[in-house]
Amino acid sequence: MRQTRSVTVPETRRDTRLDRYVASYADRTHGLTVSAVRALFSVANRPEVVSLAGGMPNIADLPLDAVAESIAQLIRTRGTQAMQYGSGQGEERIREQICEVMAEEQISAHADDVTVTTGSQQALDLVTRTFVDPGDVVLAEAPSYVGALGTFRAYQAQVVHVAMDDHGLLPDALEQAIVASRAQGKRVKFLYTIPNFNNPSGITQPLERRRQVLDVATRHDLLIVEDNPYGLLNLESDPIPAIRSLDSERIIYLGSFSKTFAPGFRVGWALAPHAVREKLVLAQESATLCPPVFSQFAISSYLDSWDWRRQITSFKDMYRARRDAMLEGLSEHMPAGTTWTRPAGGFFVWVTLPEGLDSQAMLPRAVTARVAYVPGPAFYADGFGTRFMRLSYCFPTPERIIEGTRRLGEVLHEELEMRRTFGLGVAGPTSSRDLSGPGPDLS
Amino acid sequence: MRQTRSVTVPETRRDTRLDRYVASYADRTHGLTVSAVRALFSVANRPEVVSLAGGMPNIADLPLDAVAESIAQLIRTRGTQAMQYGSGQGEERIREQICEVMAEEQISAHADDVTVTTGSQQALDLVTRTFVDPGDVVLAEAPSYVGALGTFRAYQAQVVHVAMDDHGLLPDALEQAIVASRAQGKRVKFLYTIPNFNNPSGITQPLERRRQVLDVATRHDLLIVEDNPYGLLNLESDPIPAIRSLDSERIIYLGSFSKTFAPGFRVGWALAPHAVREKLVLAQESATLCPPVFSQFAISSYLDSWDWRRQITSFKDMYRARRDAMLEGLSEHMPAGTTWTRPAGGFFVWVTLPEGLDSQAMLPRAVTARVAYVPGPAFYADGFGTRFMRLSYCFPTPERIIEGTRRLGEVLHEELEMRRTFGLGVAGPTSSRDLSGPGPDLS
Repeated sequence: MRQTRSVTVPETRRDTRLDRYVASYADRTHGLTVSAVRALFSVANRPEVVSLAGGMPNIADLPLDAVAESIAQLIRTRGTQAMQYGSGQGEERIREQICEVMAEEQISAHADDVTVTTGSQQALDLVTRTFVDPGDVVLAEAPSYVGALGTFRAYQAQVVHVAMDDHGLLPDALEQAIVASRAQGKRVKFLYTIPNFNNPSGITQPLERRRQVLDVATRHDLLIVEDNPYGLLNLESDPIPAIRSLDSERIIYLGSFSKTFAPGFRVGWALAPHAVREKLVLAQESATLCPPVFSQFAISSYLDSWDWRRQITSFKDMYRARRDAMLEGLSEHMPAGTTWTRPAGGFFVWVTLPEGLDSQAMLPRAVTARVAYVPGPAFYADGFGTRFMRLSYCFPTPERIIEGTRRLGEVLHEELEMRRTFGLGVAGPTSSRDLSGPGPDLS
Repeated sequence: MRQTRSVTVPETRRDTRLDRYVASYADRTHGLTVSAVRALFSVANRPEVVSLAGGMPNIADLPLDAVAESIAQLIRTRGTQAMQYGSGQGEERIREQICEVMAEEQISAHADDVTVTTGSQQALDLVTRTFVDPGDVVLAEAPSYVGALGTFRAYQAQVVHVAMDDHGLLPDALEQAIVASRAQGKRVKFLYTIPNFNNPSGITQPLERRRQVLDVATRHDLLIVEDNPYGLLNLESDPIPAIRSLDSERIIYLGSFSKTFAPGFRVGWALAPHAVREKLVLAQESATLCPPVFSQFAISSYLDSWDWRRQITSFKDMYRARRDAMLEGLSEHMPAGTTWTRPAGGFFVWVTLPEGLDSQAMLPRAVTARVAYVPGPAFYADGFGTRFMRLSYCFPTPERIIEGTRRLGEVLHEELEMRRTFGLGVAGPTSSRDLSGPGPDLS
């Protein structure tokens, strides 16, 4: 049934016209393909589909009138500054405010070590550009963020996945991956990790696990890239101290305003050791001259004029209701043999399907049943993961989320029924192949 | 006197702390250094210095109240859309408007072939990323835009300069460069050209020269990257038809709102053949997920609600007065033996110093005399250019521009006097070395 996968690719991407430049493209473009997440947008955006696929924050609760007034005031009083070219490193005021935001996770940092980026995706891009030569190894959780895997691929890195348990990265597996990669003569450039509410798994490293991961990295002299877009959206407790709060010289910390304020301004950042920060600024100047200046002024105004901590509390209340709706819906509608994570924050639940089911092959039927998700293989560099799916609870209302899980439950029941009828299923070739690869230990 | 050059490098860049990551950086970072332009900012921004160095547009004439009102209205009515994630290709409405802007230069294009970027610098970055493997050749005018040369270096391209006369690129020299590079087994990926008011030389290709350049490119099957940030700021006539208006399959056209509206929004674009556009969108998604969404909505609102053509006319009147002030000041204050270009638009005048003078060695003394410029070598990939300097007339007032040329004239007179006194000068080692390299034929 794998051939049906192509229906998720929009028609415009399958242009059959001759590409006269096909021999001219750089080697790095060969791995670039339309991601499953992106291909899904065209179908999942239809209003009749409950999309549990996207990672868009719900920003409907933002105080639009107050934002409008503060930005209008900004333009009237400092417009020629906010609309002018700015610093390649980012504006000083917002870099100071970023340090205040990071202090919520016990990070002590100086504004001079912050580089502002065009969303934290660009921070990932600049870090990878700065460190990775083709063939270098990047270590990443299994599963890991699809957008990061795409960036690593674009710089021709070899991603080596490291297994997790329900406390995140396994220190022993991390150590083995470092040793084994180096024994093969590979240069291991960094560990990429999302310690809070991992995208896609929803799993969080407790503080003690963070210390263990840092300890392994320190013993093996490994740089850690800590990607933390969701850390302040902890629905169960105060934010957990960042890995960066434990060490300032071994960590590049990536943050973002996309989930705590709004993504459309495209403002993220990297906090890096001093020498690395210099490289990042040079890379930023080469890439964009300077990150979006007006966006930085706009966010600065918002942070100065609005109680942003209270706004985050209100976001957390909203997301908690949605997460609870999803967990309730899954409990009610999933067939036996299905398991899922229970995230303490962030946007995502990671579902393990009953043996024999294939999330990728099943997707067209799910979309026909008006529910969308992201199949597991998007989150692995190696094609593993067909038994998993990522469900997001960030954007639809709680009612729609429950309806989405109901539709998804029907699809799963039908799949299982079909497999029973036609004698497929348990220990079929798809699942046995997949389960032999690396993957999260979610049992 | 070359050792004095280092005074332009800010102290913070010469950090002597051990960089523990020095062995970990990617090969591509080795060529990344602080550009002369950037290093200058720290001195040239002092209020007592007349900076003829920067390329900042003067946006003081923008209708700030109107912009404030249209953006506030945007946030109140469509804020959750404008502040949300958007398309990796850019928003559809602004891509349509971009086609209207390009029609001013006789370009016929479809919005589907436009990719929005974080300033046109990012368009350059994405194009280079898409085409250039290390060692590939990029052809560029001599001199050419410092920011483009930096990006080509960041992707480890070999830049081969092509000589100009006062009508821009010499078709014969272009042909020779293609043939010679290919004879050496090099892959020539594209010609990078700024046909209107070249940065830094101020030279413009007339339509007939554009046809000749395109003809050479066609005969040798070469892609052209046409960079055109200044085209609508033609101070002498209607805009000249773009090279892209003559051919749609061989050209990647780069445009920007930075000079016709405001740079702080960081919105530029690439118009590319269909297959290339697909690659650019994939590269954009990998680099930033999507270009700044709010900026795109803000510019769309501005274009919809304001007579932007009249605004450009008003910008042109303002820049014309500044250009005329600079040409007048140069005529009055430059010593004999100095020559300069007379740009028909854009921001820059390119000055050729009397023989024996070195713009780079002279810069610290100029800054001491409270005038700044960019020394010629910034605009060459190969260290050539010490006899040239770029002067910009975009930002200071006409009075300040004239005062700047007066101060510069004094510095040049003193330099010449010193050289006469100490017997240096004509046909000294600096100038003879430099003039043996490639360069513009500005005689």
